[in-house]
Amino acid sequence: MSRLRWLTAGESHGPALVATLEGLPAGVPITTDMVADHLARRRLGYGRGARMKFERDEVTFLGGVRHGLTLGSPVAIMVGNTEWPKWEQVMAADPVDPEVLAGLARNAPLTRPRPGHADLAGMQKYGFDEARPILERASARETAARVALGAVARSYLKETAGIEIVSHVVELCSVKAPQGVLPTPADVEKLDADPLRCLDADTSKAMVAEVDQAHKDGDTLGGVVEVLAYGVPVGLGSHVHWDRKLDARLAGALMGIQAIKGVEIGDGFELARVPGSKAHDEIVNTPEGIKRVSGRAGGTEGGLSTGELLRVRAAMKPIATVPRALKTVDVTTGEATQAHHQRSDVSAVPAAGIVAEAMVALVLADAVAEKFGGDSVAETRRNVTSYLDNLAIR
Amino acid sequence: MSRLRWLTAGESHGPALVATLEGLPAGVPITTDMVADHLARRRLGYGRGARMKFERDEVTFLGGVRHGLTLGSPVAIMVGNTEWPKWEQVMAADPVDPEVLAGLARNAPLTRPRPGHADLAGMQKYGFDEARPILERASARETAARVALGAVARSYLKETAGIEIVSHVVELCSVKAPQGVLPTPADVEKLDADPLRCLDADTSKAMVAEVDQAHKDGDTLGGVVEVLAYGVPVGLGSHVHWDRKLDARLAGALMGIQAIKGVEIGDGFELARVPGSKAHDEIVNTPEGIKRVSGRAGGTEGGLSTGELLRVRAAMKPIATVPRALKTVDVTTGEATQAHHQRSDVSAVPAAGIVAEAMVALVLADAVAEKFGGDSVAETRRNVTSYLDNLAIR
Amino acid sequence: MSRLRWLTAGESHGPALVATLEGLPAGVPITTDMVADHLARRRLGYGRGARMKFERDEVTFLGGVRHGLTLGSPVAIMVGNTEWPKWEQVMAADPVDPEVLAGLARNAPLTRPRPGHADLAGMQKYGFDEARPILERASARETAARVALGAVARSYLKETAGIEIVSHVVELCSVKAPQGVLPTPADVEKLDADPLRCLDADTSKAMVAEVDQAHKDGDTLGGVVEVLAYGVPVGLGSHVHWDRKLDARLAGALMGIQAIKGVEIGDGFELARVPGSKAHDEIVNTPEGIKRVSGRAGGTEGGLSTGELLRVRAAMKPIATVPRALKTVDVTTGEATQAHHQRSDVSAVPAAGIVAEAMVALVLADAVAEKFGGDSVAETRRNVTSYLDNLAIR
Amino acid sequence: MSRLRWLTAGESHGPALVATLEGLPAGVPITTDMVADHLARRRLGYGRGARMKFERDEVTFLGGVRHGLTLGSPVAIMVGNTEWPKWEQVMAADPVDPEVLAGLARNAPLTRPRPGHADLAGMQKYGFDEARPILERASARETAARVALGAVARSYLKETAGIEIVSHVVELCSVKAPQGVLPTPADVEKLDADPLRCLDADTSKAMVAEVDQAHKDGDTLGGVVEVLAYGVPVGLGSHVHWDRKLDARLAGALMGIQAIKGVEIGDGFELARVPGSKAHDEIVNTPEGIKRVSGRAGGTEGGLSTGELLRVRAAMKPIATVPRALKTVDVTTGEATQAHHQRSDVSAVPAAGIVAEAMVALVLADAVAEKFGGDSVAETRRNVTSYLDNLAIR
Repeated sequence: MSRLRWLTAGESHGPALVATLEGLPAGVPITTDMVADHLARRRLGYGRGARMKFERDEVTFLGGVRHGLTLGSPVAIMVGNTEWPKWEQVMAADPVDPEVLAGLARNAPLTRPRPGHADLAGMQKYGFDEARPILERASARETAARVALGAVARSYLKETAGIEIVSHVVELCSVKAPQGVLPTPADVEKLDADPLRCLDADTSKAMVAEVDQAHKDGDTLGGVVEVLAYGVPVGLGSHVHWDRKLDARLAGALMGIQAIKGVEIGDGFELARVPGSKAHDEIVNTPEGIKRVSGRAGGTEGGLSTGELLRVRAAMKPIATVPRALKTVDVTTGEATQAHHQRSDVSAVPAAGIVAEAMVALVLADAVAEKFGGDSVAETRRNVTSYLDNLAIR
Repeated sequence: MSRLRWLTAGESHGPALVATLEGLPAGVPITTDMVADHLARRRLGYGRGARMKFERDEVTFLGGVRHGLTLGSPVAIMVGNTEWPKWEQVMAADPVDPEVLAGLARNAPLTRPRPGHADLAGMQKYGFDEARPILERASARETAARVALGAVARSYLKETAGIEIVSHVVELCSVKAPQGVLPTPADVEKLDADPLRCLDADTSKAMVAEVDQAHKDGDTLGGVVEVLAYGVPVGLGSHVHWDRKLDARLAGALMGIQAIKGVEIGDGFELARVPGSKAHDEIVNTPEGIKRVSGRAGGTEGGLSTGELLRVRAAMKPIATVPRALKTVDVTTGEATQAHHQRSDVSAVPAAGIVAEAMVALVLADAVAEKFGGDSVAETRRNVTSYLDNLAIR
Repeated sequence: MSRLRWLTAGESHGPALVATLEGLPAGVPITTDMVADHLARRRLGYGRGARMKFERDEVTFLGGVRHGLTLGSPVAIMVGNTEWPKWEQVMAADPVDPEVLAGLARNAPLTRPRPGHADLAGMQKYGFDEARPILERASARETAARVALGAVARSYLKETAGIEIVSHVVELCSVKAPQGVLPTPADVEKLDADPLRCLDADTSKAMVAEVDQAHKDGDTLGGVVEVLAYGVPVGLGSHVHWDRKLDARLAGALMGIQAIKGVEIGDGFELARVPGSKAHDEIVNTPEGIKRVSGRAGGTEGGLSTGELLRVRAAMKPIATVPRALKTVDVTTGEATQAHHQRSDVSAVPAAGIVAEAMVALVLADAVAEKFGGDSVAETRRNVTSYLDNLAIR
Repeated sequence: MSRLRWLTAGESHGPALVATLEGLPAGVPITTDMVADHLARRRLGYGRGARMKFERDEVTFLGGVRHGLTLGSPVAIMVGNTEWPKWEQVMAADPVDPEVLAGLARNAPLTRPRPGHADLAGMQKYGFDEARPILERASARETAARVALGAVARSYLKETAGIEIVSHVVELCSVKAPQGVLPTPADVEKLDADPLRCLDADTSKAMVAEVDQAHKDGDTLGGVVEVLAYGVPVGLGSHVHWDRKLDARLAGALMGIQAIKGVEIGDGFELARVPGSKAHDEIVNTPEGIKRVSGRAGGTEGGLSTGELLRVRAAMKPIATVPRALKTVDVTTGEATQAHHQRSDVSAVPAAGIVAEAMVALVLADAVAEKFGGDSVAETRRNVTSYLDNLAIR
């Protein structure tokens, strides 16, 4: 059903990640810098460990872009791994002399699966006796590939429909941002400069303190991010079939991010806890046309975008690699032990917001392509304008 | 990617709904009664209006089943509308004499879109000047088609992998069931007999009171349902790509149900609010094999089922057709008015649980078919058994 | 990738076929009669046995259409089986008393698989010990469901882009129509009146004679049909990925028709047998714009429609149920025997043309929806017009 | 529906091609050399120009493979372009100083579209005023990416089901190989050594002469390739829905290769030209089990593999870049002119056979994965064996 298709590939310590996005029109402005900027935003956030610093992202377009514009062909982006030389043998595609491998500490089998990770279930499903082949792909490193494609998708959205996407952190473990403070595209620079990508300064300070405490405790933290999309036209998605509903597509995309365990559209669970008279967005006529008086629904009704602000949230569990290591079983011996502890962050919630932006961008790009068609940016933009100009009700 | 494909069709007041499920093996036991039983369960629940009673479900298999077993061909189920004679002209597929239509009250244009419904955005997207063509399809009546297919999917799951699905209501507006009380397949009869499909008797009473109060207030109620799947083998879904993650597929499916605004896997949002040391399920060895000591993750890690109890939740907003009608705009005149008020229920939360069961069943059936293949129940069952028997880690 | 999705269901002697098409915009004109007319055309053709006459098609829209126009929701069409009363027990969905079944000649197990049919491979794949469950679905009866949806697709094509589809029989066993005689939409009535749907009167006579001779010989005949699409705009399909190529999609769709064993685009295999200087369509400027001087490529280059006449061909093998029955093995006893001989036609080639029209219509409808988007016929038409008006090269 | 998904990306003169295949199990043996060997086979064939020699293929796995075995994660293969330094500015992803570009002969706009290529229709669809952005992707260079993935797919087929794939050239323009001479896997080395990958020595000589003559004439040649798959188990694909039919999937895949204009399963068009009594493969019992006495159907019946030899053919039109250049129009001036003539081969038919092998391998791999499931080679192989061991009819 989707007009866009995309695949990512690559292991956490492999030579590179590669992401391919098929179905975009020609003429979308995109450059190496635009992608690299978003990848850099993904590294933001107080509470990240050292790894985020020495692991730089090298961006190379392998296809689909020429002289700063898409060609209409599949866009492929390679994100190199600057640590590759250290891993060349452990993660080599071709067979490596077993004696050489045996001498490498990095190649030691990972037989103590970490609770909260794909380690154990992955080994069982794919028939491995250690977790390396699983965790290499399950790692959140893979989200860099999504953010790279998200950069392309958001340029497409901006050019064809004027859509802009912003995210912020609204909860970090026990600290909650005040409700109803919604950043706009003008706030992005400020948000990116905040250690927790939180718009409210006091909340941000409290979150920093929460991170510091967790760091002392040898613990990790989760939180909630909110993504807003400005300029979404009425009528993306559809009520006619469950999997055309914009909400369903957004929920699948957000829950498909590593460590996300909950998703809300608009006020989400809170809507289930108030009566109907307080749960919906009443409709009024204004000099600028028909509007809703509130945004509880998050900009969708019946699976369709309403033309109001789109607002969704995702709940991230704490990082599963807890320094104060969790109990597990050694799968070789069957004995009780402690889980592998790899170098890790206290919290990746700010980064999750950037990944969530990318997923929202990819879903909206698909919905725009589906509704408006078009093989060049000019054609799609023309179709968007013509649709809006011809709305009988507005 | 999905091995199963399914489509539903039909309008709320049309002659019938029809649902087609393609991709199941041969040999799945299914009968008209089995489907009708689940459709009857969908009508359960305190707080439903009169409509649920006089609108009976007539089930007819149009294809894919012979003598109580699937054939391997697409399964098509028609759910008739016993009220069709009243709607034959208003909803006729073929053109009807305009004078005849003009005389029918039921055919009066619906120009006052209801907040919280697809009405307004749907009219704008599809270019209609009244809401009938939208609400006929956006109506929750469509979920009967899903429940019908869900009945087939759950028989497939039971026969091939021993999976069983149960749901219950855990919140109704302000009333919450006690945490951690999880019904088993043995509780289904009792649950279905409860006015709110709630396992805890005291909570159920409080929920009845909540419904009664809302009824008096001319208001409507939402709530939260939880779905449990017993017997899910380790390794459904995958960490290797975002849209193979079982969580992502469950979230999309649940959010694709009418009026659902939030979805959680396991403890969901609560996991974002506790530190990592309290958020994960530690792994231990037991006489029955490797187990988790808790079920916070809801039975998935890294997008894979872990072999533990699968547990997901969906938050339903209150019914949008609020008797104490909401403000809206007449799209013909542009004047402020009150939303159409159609005959409606106070709450459909218990029914949402049944629909959620169906969606979970369809997602799991797809995941089982994908992992185990097979064109007959015997073949799939053999593959499941062989996989489990050959697990090196367990 | 497809914007349209469609599924058919139903067995040859079941209560009905049902076809569902999801993804069309609102406002496509379609009526029961329009569908029934195309179903009647599918029954045309000299060389059909008696069954085609007493098996009438009853058309009922179950969803997606109101007062002669699509609603934007899934279109579902049921094609009833008037012989159903004779088959109600043999093909019952629910279990039937085994004693009752034992007394029914129609229910006798079909254990002598027919060469050229799905019988044997189907029984092996799905684990059946007789062919009934296979042949019921493999039967060409299923194509009625496709023709029904094709009627909707062609109305969509006509309304949005002015595309019209015609087919004719160009070969019947040893008889070939003269090359280069291409019927236009104006010839359809005449073609439908011809016993073999062949435009050339002399060829038609020779084909009739061929059928008569085969009938005497207890034999069956295949042939070749050609489908032409007029008014296809430049730029449907794409060169950017193999499965976006219009040729690939047409080839898959045509080869997916029962008994089709070969497919050609334009001159097809003949193009492989001439040098490059005679194989391509040179480009010239004319007062009406840029044109090709010939149509060898069949209206596609690089997987894209060129704006020239689209022309494709499909080769149908002779009906596999040969009266002069073929050798086979009884699967119960393992003994050599003769294949089941069910009531059968000498040739179904004219009908195959109608089915091929439907498949071409469905492929083109998908390609139009993908390129032009739109949720109402008005919107899609506007987008088509705008694209053509803005072509820089023409 | 497909269990496997794959995308290719990259332009002909870009830095690299990249291909990603998602959905394979863990444990498929694959190395850089195995892929490079198949890429080298793609360069074979008498009648190739100079380009094939100096354009070497550099293979790098970017993901999905470790120490010679797949991981279950997406397999990504990069095929580098050794000529990239010459094209770095012309095909740069990022903007290049216009003055620099203006000085590069290679960057001159291609405004004379070549008949038989995507050039003209591509420019019109995507809104370009010259053909470079189109031909870069439409070029047959892209097939290297498919051959790379095909190498992985065939290893999967060999390991799990013992399937092996062979192709040969059966027609080159006017020269036809004798019918019924079918190479086996043991003939591959000999075939690869033949200048035209033709099994019959005399035919090969005649084909060489045909190429020499065309070269003298400034002309190009097409032909027909045949692909055979040995060891295909009964029951791949299905009769239950058109797009599950193995024939339909093979036809779409083969017609999706550049320059292919016709596809046949088994005897294809010839089957339409003989009566039913001579068109089907009679079934007999033998000491080795049930067999067909002939292979006219090419190993499929009703869309299912029969367990007999799978045999398909594809017709390639002559290369469209004809040295004796064809008439066209300059799209800038509208004036009549001659098409661009880029360095080109006389014939690429032998290479088309290698590409066709890859496409057949990818289709069969998808069908095997769909039928047998499995997340490790061991699991899939077990399921295949168990299915074959449990066949009631054989």
